[in-house]
Amino acid sequence: MKIREIGEFGLIDKLVGRLGPGDESVVVGIGDDAAVTAYASGTHVVTTTDMLVEGVHFRTDTIDDRSLGYKSLAVSISDIAAMGARPRHAVISLAIPVEMDVERLEDLYAGVADICAEFATVVVGGDITKTSGPLVISVTLLGEIEAGRALLRSGAKPGDLLFVTGTVGGSAAGLDYLEHGRTTAFATRGEAEVGQLLQFHQRPRPQVVAGRLLLESGACTSLNDVSDGLASECNEIAKLSGVRLELDAEQLPLHDGVRQYAALRELDPVQWALFGGEDYQLVGTIQPTEAQRTEALFAKNSLSLTVIGRVTAEQSVGVTLHYAGQAHELKPKGYNHFG
Amino acid sequence: MKIREIGEFGLIDKLVGRLGPGDESVVVGIGDDAAVTAYASGTHVVTTTDMLVEGVHFRTDTIDDRSLGYKSLAVSISDIAAMGARPRHAVISLAIPVEMDVERLEDLYAGVADICAEFATVVVGGDITKTSGPLVISVTLLGEIEAGRALLRSGAKPGDLLFVTGTVGGSAAGLDYLEHGRTTAFATRGEAEVGQLLQFHQRPRPQVVAGRLLLESGACTSLNDVSDGLASECNEIAKLSGVRLELDAEQLPLHDGVRQYAALRELDPVQWALFGGEDYQLVGTIQPTEAQRTEALFAKNSLSLTVIGRVTAEQSVGVTLHYAGQAHELKPKGYNHFG
Repeated sequence: MKIREIGEFGLIDKLVGRLGPGDESVVVGIGDDAAVTAYASGTHVVTTTDMLVEGVHFRTDTIDDRSLGYKSLAVSISDIAAMGARPRHAVISLAIPVEMDVERLEDLYAGVADICAEFATVVVGGDITKTSGPLVISVTLLGEIEAGRALLRSGAKPGDLLFVTGTVGGSAAGLDYLEHGRTTAFATRGEAEVGQLLQFHQRPRPQVVAGRLLLESGACTSLNDVSDGLASECNEIAKLSGVRLELDAEQLPLHDGVRQYAALRELDPVQWALFGGEDYQLVGTIQPTEAQRTEALFAKNSLSLTVIGRVTAEQSVGVTLHYAGQAHELKPKGYNHFG
Repeated sequence: MKIREIGEFGLIDKLVGRLGPGDESVVVGIGDDAAVTAYASGTHVVTTTDMLVEGVHFRTDTIDDRSLGYKSLAVSISDIAAMGARPRHAVISLAIPVEMDVERLEDLYAGVADICAEFATVVVGGDITKTSGPLVISVTLLGEIEAGRALLRSGAKPGDLLFVTGTVGGSAAGLDYLEHGRTTAFATRGEAEVGQLLQFHQRPRPQVVAGRLLLESGACTSLNDVSDGLASECNEIAKLSGVRLELDAEQLPLHDGVRQYAALRELDPVQWALFGGEDYQLVGTIQPTEAQRTEALFAKNSLSLTVIGRVTAEQSVGVTLHYAGQAHELKPKGYNHFG
């Protein structure tokens, strides 16, 4: 069905119909000039915004519409997680090519509803418009955090340990599989193994619980999410904290399937972890005396936290990569939209 | 200068450099995973979002970049005003054609800074990306309101009076002047008169003070902002309140310059007021016993509030336009992006 058949307001009705119910924090939801939301006293509001453009951030041949909806919010939920906060309310705007089918947008919103249900997040507003260009998805997400407790990128201290949650490099591996792997021997593996690779790329799970555990630990000194790759994220922490990070490549937590797929492709999965991005795990620093206790806390919650390096007192700010017995200066090399 | 010469991060530095300082409500500003902001206890957060696309919402031949920056936020501030709230914090995302000059974006942000200074609003974050399509501007604005006091579209009661603030139809008149008027006799008028028409279209002033006065009056029963034209906005109030509105065209407050320009163009300025939109005044309903007192309150603040009709108890929901001695059913006819 084309949008012109139901018009702007018909489309809004269909999309809103895909969303789940609100909760008691939503005083005024979709349908007035603005939404009104209530936060617990003693908390601050945490706000992040991300804009995703077809052909730049996603392509229809590597992600289905429902996963795209899921991932569009995952990106922002991950930013909220990286502050140690809880996601609460989202607004979503779409610039839509006029020929786009209504069903595709409904699938997109089904994915939005999936992740909102998973993370107790409510969509409270949005805007839609036509465009002569590619599909643009803009998400702004509001979260809630105990006043004065936000985990920043700027608190790393010499002596702290560098850690990452979960595994890294999986999103780049999944993208590589979608682009080059479907004709390799890996494609003959079971659905679960292939599906895991695809999930790393298409439905990355933001680490809200991990962020909360790190906040509760009281020992996390800096935190960032892995959107642009570890090289870029570690450099951000180093720069904002005014420290040097020493990253040990051999300690990087890589998923077994990712290692095996990389071997098959004769590629180095460490490169995916450092420069691939979109893993949406959390990377940060922690007081050394508290690392073991925090690892145990993670394990108790079926999550993992891996020490991958340390913070040193060197004068020069930056990141040193220790890899195969050699030390390299690790440059950010994150994705530069206009590089 | 092209963006590729300074890269994504160079551009961000330049744009952030255009913005004014924060205030004590900003706990964490631009530069981390997310912003952290504090609101007074006893308040709720009001959130609105708008997406503007070049060629759909604006054209470079009818608005300069600095005014575009101003107007991009004015649209959202107006939504906050229409809740009776105060704007506080904004996030802005841009999808930018790669060939766009850096100077144009700096001008855009100068306009953002203009309106932020005027309305005590702080930009606390954003996102930029390239696009193969037209420039897209996405603004999300957070405001603050006393808990339980938001002015909705749904409270109009039979017997209430219908009002509008300021004057209406000016934005459509300004756009008409830009498209057709520059070769008319109106162009020979003084700069102030022509400038006023252009300002209605290019730098509409959101009615935050008016919204606050309406909230404080305790007599405002419904409120909406005039983004799509009075016909559309009145129908929204009628629909959400379950009432009929009677709108008297002869009472519409039209600016003298707009009347004179319309006469020159042999056009009816009432059509601009009803269907033009983008005036960003407030339209709503008020208890009849309090109308005079509220008008006086407005006058004391150098603002105007004009009664333009009333709410009736008829069974059928909608809007009746009384014009030149006849009664018409006034249909919404707002802009439909996919109509």
